[in-house]
Order: sequence, then C-alpha cells, then structure tokens
Amino acid sequence: MIIIKLGGSIITNKQKSLTVKLNRINKIVEKLKTVKEEIIIIHGGGSFGHYWSLKYNMHTKPMKYNSHGISIVKNSMVELNKIILNAFFKTGFNPYVFPASNFINVHGIPIIEKILEMKEISKSGLVPISYGDVLWRYKRRSYILSGDRIMTILSKIIKPRLAIFILNEDGIYSNFAKKKLIYKLNNEKPDIKMINDSTGGIERKCNEAKQIQTLNVKVFFVNGNKPNRIIDAINNVRFVGTLLE
Amino acid sequence: MIIIKLGGSIITNKQKSLTVKLNRINKIVEKLKTVKEEIIIIHGGGSFGHYWSLKYNMHTKPMKYNSHGISIVKNSMVELNKIILNAFFKTGFNPYVFPASNFINVHGIPIIEKILEMKEISKSGLVPISYGDVLWRYKRRSYILSGDRIMTILSKIIKPRLAIFILNEDGIYSNFAKKKLIYKLNNEKPDIKMINDSTGGIERKCNEAKQIQTLNVKVFFVNGNKPNRIIDAINNVRFVGTLLE
Repeated sequence: MIIIKLGGSIITNKQKSLTVKLNRINKIVEKLKTVKEEIIIIHGGGSFGHYWSLKYNMHTKPMKYNSHGISIVKNSMVELNKIILNAFFKTGFNPYVFPASNFINVHGIPIIEKILEMKEISKSGLVPISYGDVLWRYKRRSYILSGDRIMTILSKIIKPRLAIFILNEDGIYSNFAKKKLIYKLNNEKPDIKMINDSTGGIERKCNEAKQIQTLNVKVFFVNGNKPNRIIDAINNVRFVGTLLE
Repeated sequence: MIIIKLGGSIITNKQKSLTVKLNRINKIVEKLKTVKEEIIIIHGGGSFGHYWSLKYNMHTKPMKYNSHGISIVKNSMVELNKIILNAFFKTGFNPYVFPASNFINVHGIPIIEKILEMKEISKSGLVPISYGDVLWRYKRRSYILSGDRIMTILSKIIKPRLAIFILNEDGIYSNFAKKKLIYKLNNEKPDIKMINDSTGGIERKCNEAKQIQTLNVKVFFVNGNKPNRIIDAINNVRFVGTLLE
C-alpha cells in the first residue's frame, strides 16, 4: 500500500487564488492508473483552502477563529476535493472521499478504527481520498490540519510500504537558489528558504517525513511535473528526487 | 434549535437524473435566512445519490456492493452537497459540511461526542449541513444511510425544539389520489401510495417522524414549494402541512 500526497502547489496555481492546474492533475492521475498496488491519496489546499486560511489568519493552533473564515476554508476544500475526485473518476479509478473529520475526534486524537477502515476501503477496489482541512475542536475552537500532518497520522496506523510527497519541485533542496537537490535526506539539511508547499513550510514537511521514516516507511519527494518519476520511485528504479529511508 | 430536512424531491428533479431545482433551493434558503433560531440542515439524495443507489441496487442493508456503484453514489452526493453549500453561502449563511461518516462509527453506531460537536458548530454562527450517503461498515460492507434516518439519529442526541421535513407535497396524505392532507398525524394513517421522497417510502419516513416525536420534539411536514409555510410552522402560526406532536 502506498500513501501519496498531492501537494497544494502541484494541483493548484498558488500565484492565483482558486485556480487549479487541471492538466497537471490529469497527467499525474493517468500515471497513477498504471500502479498495480493499492493507493491512498491525500491532497493539500493550495490556492483554495491554504489561500483562505492565510487570508483569515487561521493556523494549526486550535482557537476561536472567524466563523465566516471557517466556512470559506471548508467550502473551498470541498470545491478542490470535488475536482480531484472527478479527475480520479474520469481516469477509471473509484475514488471515495474520506474527510479528515472522519478520523479525528473532538480532542484532535486520531480514531484508529476509522483509519483502519480507510485501509479496508483501499483494499476493496476504491481509492480513499482525504485532504488538509479546517477541523472542529471541543470548546468551540477550530484548527487547520495540513495534508502533510495527515500523511504522518495515517502512516502510523496503516503502515504503508511507501509514502510519496508530490511537489512542484524536483525534491528537497540543500540550496534553493542553486536548486541543489538532496538525493538522500537522512544526513543533509534542507534549505528553509525553499518555496513551501504546505502549512508551516519545508521544515514542518521534512519533520513529518522523518516521523514517517522512523516507522520504517520509505519516503519519497518527487516532482509532479515529471510524473514518470513517481512511477520510478514506486518501482524502485533510480529516479530524480529526494529519498528518506 | 431546529433540524430541517430538505427532501430529495424538493431540491432535485426526480424525473430527470442529476438535475437540481436551483430556483427552489434558493427560495427556501432565502426564507430560512429570516429564522432567528439556530438550524441544522440535512438533505436527501434525490436524482443524485438516490438515483444512483437504485441503479446499483444499493440499500440500507450492509452488504458488499459494487465498488464502482459505491464511488458513483458517494461522488454524486459530494456534487449535490456542494450545490446546497453554495446556496447557503450565497444567501449569507456560514455553511459547514458535516458528512454522516463523521458521526457514525464502523459498526453503524452514532458517535455521541461528534453529534454534540454539530450542536456546538451550530451555536457558533455556522450551519452544519449533513446528507444521506453511502457509508462504510466493517467487514468490507457498505450501506445507504438516508437523510430521514439521520433526522432521528441527530434528534435523539441534539434534542431540537422542532424537526421539519420539507417535501415536494403539502404534507402527508391519507388519500394520495385525492390529495387529502393529514393535519395531525398522531391518529391518522398515511396513504402508502404517496410519492415517496426518500429511501424506503412514506412508511419509513413516518416511522422516523414518530421516533422523533417520542423524544418530545414537534415534527412538521411542509411543502417546500410554499416556503412561507416553513416559517409559519417555525413561528407556531396556523399552517398548511402535517404536524406530529
């Protein structure tokens, strides 16, 4: 089983609010159709949820945020998720939306039996699709749960063979200005100036990846603009990207 | 607090697959904007989820249904739900999608703390919106959970002041051919030939209503084509429709 994160920057145009890169999404999804293994998909918020959460100053910290902002972030993620669901459906997959609110309780704790359900869904010829979202917490607070964080939460319980982060860059860079790629992240330090793809920047992303790696799950960062590299990573062929194992 | 069910027949055109009655939806939502009380919305599947579940022979009984059918039903409900969310958003509400999969566990049992969360969301200036859907059950089975059933599940825990079923008819009829309306359902028998609005026909709908009424919640059936009647029912003014108390 493989868990794949479609980063916000690769599925949307972060430079322009509420725009998707439909052609890019379709090409990635078509390539994933050639994968014989079961997959679970997570996607980010990009110029939808991520854009609005910045606009309304909403973060990963549970707080009383503006109700209108909460509604806009949540609705925009339904919108983006629908586009992703459609792309998978049109390509011949049987996508099955599984929002993060399904498997996180009111105290922010993962619900193990719900996450195991996701594994069963994936084994039944369906593709569970989840996404970064605004979630509710008790005492009328809410918070942003990023797609990257979901990768770690799911990996801990599902124990996939691989966890793949699909980026809008070749991988993780040690020097962003020079686009110096880190092939093996284990000992090298990422350049924190690297354009971030997520809630909290590249440091948080690498931190999630390291947590996944400690579960004995191989982690890949690959460029979604070159979908063949995703397949190479899955098939354990030499590929351009960043590996953490 | 008021829980309102928008029946599949009033929000979609059941005669034609995948068609919404957008004008009808907008008029109802605009009228609901005048309500001062907190509301929770449930909607049915109509010519979206209901249509596809019939086509793929999927029922309320947990079974191993066709994966493609499961995916189509679920995706079509995301589609219909998005239209409902948009209608509420455009009218000035802050809608907050709360899928049934959030508050039902893998054994089909309601998760009380999640349902109470829905109440808190409603009290925070947001409008929780849920809908009939295909849900996952352990042992790789799935089943249809109707919007009507959700009305009962939520009422038991949330204990609203009113539960309102918005239909495409004046209310419940004792004689469907003659459109003889039952004003008080308590002692009269509905005509089972009445066009059904839900999973399982008018008998099941009345059965859910009776379960809600035993919780000391007043239940109304009103015609969504005359949105004023919804307001009359809420304001306890003499109205055309069916009452169960």
